[in-house]
Amino acid sequence: MKTILIKSVELNGKPVDILIEGNIIKRIARYLPDETNIVLNGRKKAVIPGLVNMHTHAAMTLFRGYADEMPLMPWLEEKIWPNEAKLTHEDVYWGTKLACLEMIKSGTTAFFDMYHKFPATARAVEEMGIRAMLSSACFDHFQPEQAEKAKAHTNKLFAGMGAYSERIKFALGPHAIYTVSGKLLQWIDTFSKENFNTPIHIHLAETETEVKNSISQFGYTPVRYLNRLGILSPRLTIAHGVYVDDEEIRMLADKGVKVVHNPASNMKLASGIQFKFAEMKKAGIPVAIGTDGCSSSNNLDMIEAMKLASLLGKGWRKDPVALTAGEMLFAATEEGAGMLGFKAGRIEEGYLADLCLVDLNTPAFAPNFNFVSNLVYAANGSCVDTVVCDGKILMQNKQVPGEEEIIEQTTQIAYNLMSR
Amino acid sequence: MKTILIKSVELNGKPVDILIEGNIIKRIARYLPDETNIVLNGRKKAVIPGLVNMHTHAAMTLFRGYADEMPLMPWLEEKIWPNEAKLTHEDVYWGTKLACLEMIKSGTTAFFDMYHKFPATARAVEEMGIRAMLSSACFDHFQPEQAEKAKAHTNKLFAGMGAYSERIKFALGPHAIYTVSGKLLQWIDTFSKENFNTPIHIHLAETETEVKNSISQFGYTPVRYLNRLGILSPRLTIAHGVYVDDEEIRMLADKGVKVVHNPASNMKLASGIQFKFAEMKKAGIPVAIGTDGCSSSNNLDMIEAMKLASLLGKGWRKDPVALTAGEMLFAATEEGAGMLGFKAGRIEEGYLADLCLVDLNTPAFAPNFNFVSNLVYAANGSCVDTVVCDGKILMQNKQVPGEEEIIEQTTQIAYNLMSR
Repeated sequence: MKTILIKSVELNGKPVDILIEGNIIKRIARYLPDETNIVLNGRKKAVIPGLVNMHTHAAMTLFRGYADEMPLMPWLEEKIWPNEAKLTHEDVYWGTKLACLEMIKSGTTAFFDMYHKFPATARAVEEMGIRAMLSSACFDHFQPEQAEKAKAHTNKLFAGMGAYSERIKFALGPHAIYTVSGKLLQWIDTFSKENFNTPIHIHLAETETEVKNSISQFGYTPVRYLNRLGILSPRLTIAHGVYVDDEEIRMLADKGVKVVHNPASNMKLASGIQFKFAEMKKAGIPVAIGTDGCSSSNNLDMIEAMKLASLLGKGWRKDPVALTAGEMLFAATEEGAGMLGFKAGRIEEGYLADLCLVDLNTPAFAPNFNFVSNLVYAANGSCVDTVVCDGKILMQNKQVPGEEEIIEQTTQIAYNLMSR
Repeated sequence: MKTILIKSVELNGKPVDILIEGNIIKRIARYLPDETNIVLNGRKKAVIPGLVNMHTHAAMTLFRGYADEMPLMPWLEEKIWPNEAKLTHEDVYWGTKLACLEMIKSGTTAFFDMYHKFPATARAVEEMGIRAMLSSACFDHFQPEQAEKAKAHTNKLFAGMGAYSERIKFALGPHAIYTVSGKLLQWIDTFSKENFNTPIHIHLAETETEVKNSISQFGYTPVRYLNRLGILSPRLTIAHGVYVDDEEIRMLADKGVKVVHNPASNMKLASGIQFKFAEMKKAGIPVAIGTDGCSSSNNLDMIEAMKLASLLGKGWRKDPVALTAGEMLFAATEEGAGMLGFKAGRIEEGYLADLCLVDLNTPAFAPNFNFVSNLVYAANGSCVDTVVCDGKILMQNKQVPGEEEIIEQTTQIAYNLMSR
C-alpha cells in the first residue's frame, strides 16, 4: 500500500512525524522510521486539517468580478441568470476545475456545492482530487410541470451516483423557498428519508426581503415555514440563516438542522451582518463556514473566511472576546467535515488523510506565539504549501500540477460565455 | 542615471512599457526601446501604485498573536504596556524590519507610523527601502513634568531629521486625548505651525468609552474638544474617527482634517463598525485606509484592508453599491500618498516610482473581467510579485533579499522580549 511520511512537522506546537497509509492517517509519533514511498519534509511547517468550505457554487468562478457593485435583483436578472442560462457542461467543468484549483491552493480539501450540470461538476472534482458533497440546484418556480422535471432529474442523478468515487457524495439542492414550492420541498424531504437520508442543502433566511416575502406569501418566517412543512431535520443544512429569532434557533436546534455562515457574501451583498454564531452554538446547532460562490464573495479562501467570520462577529456584538480563532478553525474543519459525513477535519490516527502543511517561514507566523491566532488573523490562503487529500499529494511547494492550463482555459471559457 | 524599463505590463487593461529614471516614472508608452540598465518582464502582470498604509505601529509585529481574544483594558494593562516598557532600540529596529518586509511583500511602499524609539524605526525603514512618515508616540498622562520631557524629546528628534533620506518624514504623534493633556496638544499644534507645518497624527474617536470619558472629563465629544482647543487643521490626521456625528464631520471638513479608517482593528477590538466613509468623502474629507499595528489587526496587508473596508461598509449600511473597489484603491494609494505629501500613488509620468507588479497568473485574476474588482475582492497581499520604491527594486519574484534572516531574528527578539 502506498504510504507518505511527513517528517518533523509542527502539530500543536510540537514536532511530529505523520504516517499516511492509503487514505488514512495511520500513525503520529515523535519519530517514525523512514521506510516509506514518499517523504515530505515538514520542517518550518505546521500541519492542519484540510479546510472544509460548506457553501459554494463552484463553477461561478466563471463570474468572478463580472458584475460587482450592483444591487441584488438587477445583478441576478441582468447579469447572472441570462448567462447561467447559456452554461454548457464544458463551461461548468472548467469553472469547477478552477474552483478546485483555488481551493487546493488555499488549503481546502472538501466542499459542499450547489449548482447546475451535476455531471460536469463531479467530473472536475474527480480529476482535481478533492472531496465534495454536490447538490444539483433544484427549482420549480411554483410550476407543477417544472416540479415534475426536477423530480425526474433528481431520480436520474441519484441513480447515476455509482459512477463516482467515495470522494463525491450526493445531496439534494432545493435552491430556496422563493424558487421551490412547498410541495416540491416535501417531495425532496421524502426522497431524502427514503434514500439513505440523503442530505439536503438550501439557502434560507438570507435577506430581509426573503423574510418579508415569506411572511406575505406563506404566512410564516422562513424557518417557521419549513417547520410547518415538516422538513426541518438532521438531514437539512441551511446556508446563511442570518434572519432567525430565538424561537427559530430553538426550532433548528431541536430538529438537528445544520447551519453554514458565509460572512463575505453576507457583507458584500449587504444581506445582513448579525449572524448569531454564539447563540446557535449555545443552542447546540452545528455551525460551519462557507465562502459562497465567486460571483458574490469573490474568492474561495477559507482562511480569509475564518478571519471575516470572527472579526464581523466581534464587530457587530461589540465583544472582542467573541468568536475566537480556535472556534473558527473548528468550524472550518471538524464541524464541516462532520456535517458532510466524512471522518476528516482532525489530525488524528484513524482519520482521513486530508491535511495541509502551512509554511511558517513567512511574516504572518513571525513571531509564532499562537499558531491558530496567526493562521486565522494574520495569514491568508497563500500560507498553504502542501495539500494532501484522500492520501494523495495534490500540491507541493505551492504548485498544483497543470495550474497554468486551468487558469488559461477557464479564463477563455468565461470570456466566451459572456460574449456569446 | 540608473534606469529601469518595465516591458509589456498591464495598465488599465492595456499593455504598456514604463521607463523609470532615478526615482521618477519618466515615460509610459505602448513601446519603449530597451537601452536601459535593468529590464523587468511585465508579461502576465499588472502595474499598480505602491499601497499606502496610513496607520501603523510598525514594531508591534513583535506582539503578533501574543494576546488575542482579550478585552481592551486587560489586554493593554497586562500584556502590551508592561512589555512595551521593556522595549529596547534593538527590539524596535527588528520589529520594524519585519513590518517593512511584510509591507513590501504585500505591496505597500509607504506608511504613516506612530511608535516609540524613533531612531530605531527610522534606521529600519532606511535599510528596507520604503517610504514612511514617522511620528514618535507622545504622552504626558496629564503630568506637567512628563509634558516637559515630551517637548524636549520632540525638539531633539526634530533637530535630528537632517540625518535621514527624503524617504523619511517626521510627524508629531500625540497618542490620544486620554493620554495627552490639552496643553501639550496645543504646544504640539504650535510646534507644527512654527516648523514647516509638521503633520500631526492622533488616535481620535476610536471607542465609545473614549467618547463617554471625553464628555465627562472635558465636557465635549472628542472632535469638539479638539475644536475647542483650536487644533483642528489640515496638519492633523486622525486615526479611526469611528464616533463622529454630522456636525463633527462638518467641523473636520471645514478645518481640513484628514481621517484614516482601520477596518480590521475596529472590528477585531470591537471598537465600532459604522465608519462613515461615504459621509466624510461627501463632505470633502480625505479618507485613507490603514491596518493599525499587528497587535490588534494582526497583519499589514493593505489589499485585505481594502476588502474589509468595502465589505464592512456595504454590510452595516445594507447597501451593496457603497464603497466600491475603485474608491478603496484610490483611498489606499493616491489619497494616502497625498496625505503624506509624497507625489506618489499614481502610475503617471512625473510621479515617484513607487509601484507594484501584480501576478495575474493566479486564480484570483481568472477570469479578469475587472482587474480592480479582482484585486480588492478576490486577491490578497500574496498577489504582489515585484515592488519598486523610490526607483529601486525591493522585491522580485515574491522574494525580498534577506527575508529569512529578518523573520528568524525578529522571532527570536520577540521571544526574548516576552520572557525577560
